[in-house]
Amino acid sequence: MFEVHSGLGFAVVLAIILLSTKVLGLLFRRLGLPQVLGYIIAGILVGPAIFGDFLGFSLLGFESDAYTPLFVLEGEGFSHGTDGLAIFSKIGVLLLMFSTGLETDLKELKNTGLAATLIACAGVAVPMGLGILICLPFRGVVPGLDNIYNCIFVGAILTATSVAITVSVLKELGKISTKLGTTIVSAAIIDDIIGIVVLSVVTGIAKAGTASETLTGFAAFKATPYGTIIMIVAFFIVAIGLGFGVSKLFQWLEKKWPETHRLPIFSLVVCFVYSWAAEEIFGVADITGAFLAGIILSTAHRASVYTDKKLEVNTYTMFAPVFFANIGISSIKFTGLSGMLFVFAILAVLMGLIGKVVGCGVVAKAFKYDLRQSGIAGVGMMARGEVALIVTATAMSAGLPEEIMIMTVLLILVSSILTPIFLKLLYAKEKTEPAPALAEGAVADENAVLESEIAIAEPENDDPVEKE
Amino acid sequence: MFEVHSGLGFAVVLAIILLSTKVLGLLFRRLGLPQVLGYIIAGILVGPAIFGDFLGFSLLGFESDAYTPLFVLEGEGFSHGTDGLAIFSKIGVLLLMFSTGLETDLKELKNTGLAATLIACAGVAVPMGLGILICLPFRGVVPGLDNIYNCIFVGAILTATSVAITVSVLKELGKISTKLGTTIVSAAIIDDIIGIVVLSVVTGIAKAGTASETLTGFAAFKATPYGTIIMIVAFFIVAIGLGFGVSKLFQWLEKKWPETHRLPIFSLVVCFVYSWAAEEIFGVADITGAFLAGIILSTAHRASVYTDKKLEVNTYTMFAPVFFANIGISSIKFTGLSGMLFVFAILAVLMGLIGKVVGCGVVAKAFKYDLRQSGIAGVGMMARGEVALIVTATAMSAGLPEEIMIMTVLLILVSSILTPIFLKLLYAKEKTEPAPALAEGAVADENAVLESEIAIAEPENDDPVEKE
Repeated sequence: MFEVHSGLGFAVVLAIILLSTKVLGLLFRRLGLPQVLGYIIAGILVGPAIFGDFLGFSLLGFESDAYTPLFVLEGEGFSHGTDGLAIFSKIGVLLLMFSTGLETDLKELKNTGLAATLIACAGVAVPMGLGILICLPFRGVVPGLDNIYNCIFVGAILTATSVAITVSVLKELGKISTKLGTTIVSAAIIDDIIGIVVLSVVTGIAKAGTASETLTGFAAFKATPYGTIIMIVAFFIVAIGLGFGVSKLFQWLEKKWPETHRLPIFSLVVCFVYSWAAEEIFGVADITGAFLAGIILSTAHRASVYTDKKLEVNTYTMFAPVFFANIGISSIKFTGLSGMLFVFAILAVLMGLIGKVVGCGVVAKAFKYDLRQSGIAGVGMMARGEVALIVTATAMSAGLPEEIMIMTVLLILVSSILTPIFLKLLYAKEKTEPAPALAEGAVADENAVLESEIAIAEPENDDPVEKE
Repeated sequence: MFEVHSGLGFAVVLAIILLSTKVLGLLFRRLGLPQVLGYIIAGILVGPAIFGDFLGFSLLGFESDAYTPLFVLEGEGFSHGTDGLAIFSKIGVLLLMFSTGLETDLKELKNTGLAATLIACAGVAVPMGLGILICLPFRGVVPGLDNIYNCIFVGAILTATSVAITVSVLKELGKISTKLGTTIVSAAIIDDIIGIVVLSVVTGIAKAGTASETLTGFAAFKATPYGTIIMIVAFFIVAIGLGFGVSKLFQWLEKKWPETHRLPIFSLVVCFVYSWAAEEIFGVADITGAFLAGIILSTAHRASVYTDKKLEVNTYTMFAPVFFANIGISSIKFTGLSGMLFVFAILAVLMGLIGKVVGCGVVAKAFKYDLRQSGIAGVGMMARGEVALIVTATAMSAGLPEEIMIMTVLLILVSSILTPIFLKLLYAKEKTEPAPALAEGAVADENAVLESEIAIAEPENDDPVEKE
């Protein structure tokens, strides 16, 4: 009748993750690298990957019996440790995407015009195309990489620019409010939306392609490529249709009870229900549901700003560190990887970097930016971050070999290091750049959005001493 | 190598809990009852207890096969659902107790003097003694209630005044800053500390009493009553000893990096490590570890205020609703309870109420308060809340029959309804009460503490429209 589960095992797992991610995150920031990278490295250090194989033990013990965990989480505690990681990671990624949705201003997106949209499209299409092309000859060569869907996943992973990394670099250089800066950031936001839609379609089709023959009825219909696309379209119709009602409800709530605790709580309910329905009913990625829920609630502006501010605390104190660390803890094992995988990963990363710079740069040049400015647009779009990790994790659940994570980590590492360096070099050549052509109010509003986005990537920006 | 756990099943469980707790919580507040009671009732409604037996289905499906869950959480999702509840509940109760510790001001406690301490002691001793006495004849009569330890647990459950409920009532009546109000609140805080120590000792001894014969070495030593008491003393020595270093560290941190994200994160690390060490190494309740960690960190005042403010968001948006709802979801089954249990529960609740009023009232009278004021002190200490639930859950894990939860729920329900009514009646007879005798600064500081505490029990107090 009453069963007291301890759940305590996870508390100490959480303590280890919070301490190691924060220390590594701060160290990485000192080195001028994104904190999220520090979180992942922290996960690798406390997980079984490195110490498990090289030193014969790991700080957190998990399934493998190839090493002796230093810190054994026994019985129920052990199970709660691994389940807790899965649950906190999932809530973490849903909160990140929900927050991105909340911070997306539909009007802003429309105002930034054609340039941003076309730069975003080229920034998705070119790296995706190059990624698929470079992948095709490696089928059967890299273990596990055996079908066309895997190559489409590789392409999809290369598409998503990290808004957080781009924004933090532009802010650091004081270029966020310039016309070029605004265009880049708008393009990065649109890029995220396109990337998520591409991921949904690809995941749905890949799942359909690998579905077993035993399905019947509605499940079988959903598993066909045709059914998958219909369900994706149905999801957007139903979700956006219901979204009008949800939006009206929250506009009423924020007027009647502004800044109350019920706003973030009811917002979370919408986020989780949308996420669940997207994945379980419509076969669309749950993060798409969370992101769409965020966009819908962003139409109740006051409520969404308040909710975003509150939920950010959940994200940075608990869920985001676990999400990023869990990628390191459970995904990366440096031994036993084939040499061909490394060759492939390096080539794919090159395609990802070149694809963004060329794709975005050429479109920017077509919109009358000079060569230097076009280069800035391309390099600005080059940074990858948490979205690439999310896409990789989602692709893995649909069949991508887990070894490919090494490519994603390499892509984030290299792009995170190169983007600030190249941007600084390109901006150093600048004499004067014209002031932003946008209306004052629009720029100020966008800054507010951007500041919140920095807060996710750089949780220490309320720290006046350390801020550079 | 990489395993993508879905964890999504828990997202929808969380959505159902958040929606139902908030709606019921708001409804209960409208009726003048504490919101926490609404949370528990929400848990009963969505869990299997009522609908499972009476209607043949329940919203959330759990272990029993006596009913058909309306909402089946299949396979992995199901397991994540129940594990998620356990993990979130545990984190929730640790955060609640950690926050109570953070809000405890050691200097304030000393300043409030002898009266508050003695009122608190009487408020613990009398209900505990009455509870044990009323329980003894029911051994063997109420199913599962079969030994002396269970009766000591019943006594311990009756001890803990709810600071949150008492404070919210005094605030509502505008009596929080009076001398009497300050004394009551100080006594309630001291009462919590004594209650937790009593719980630790009782739990440790009870676990020792029921330990199996197969233990050897250190584990066997810890399982003896003598070893248990030594370990409890050792815990406080080690925890407080290390606490001086932790306190110095946080005083350095708050000076060097005030109001940074690392403060709540590192605070959480201390909280979780103390909780884990208390339970797993020393055999003391984990909530005692969390509470003590909070008191230690409260000595770094600025960091603790900032941390408390930030972590409160975690508590009210996620963890506290799950903690309270989970009590309802997993603990209460109204059918199949014996008539004798109800007789016992009603008598025990009476003892709990009378014990507080008489115990605290008599001591207050001895400190020259008049009869009406002494009655207010007694009634003010009568309210029970989350701490009684925590004690009950902890006692259950040490052997108390789960049916006793009905007594705790009844105690909270009755005391929460009666306290505001009696306080209003007693204050209505008042002509003028002398202004508080304490220094202005001390009162103001205490109010700050009290306001934060209200925030836990009444998460809507930033809502100007609904606040009465």
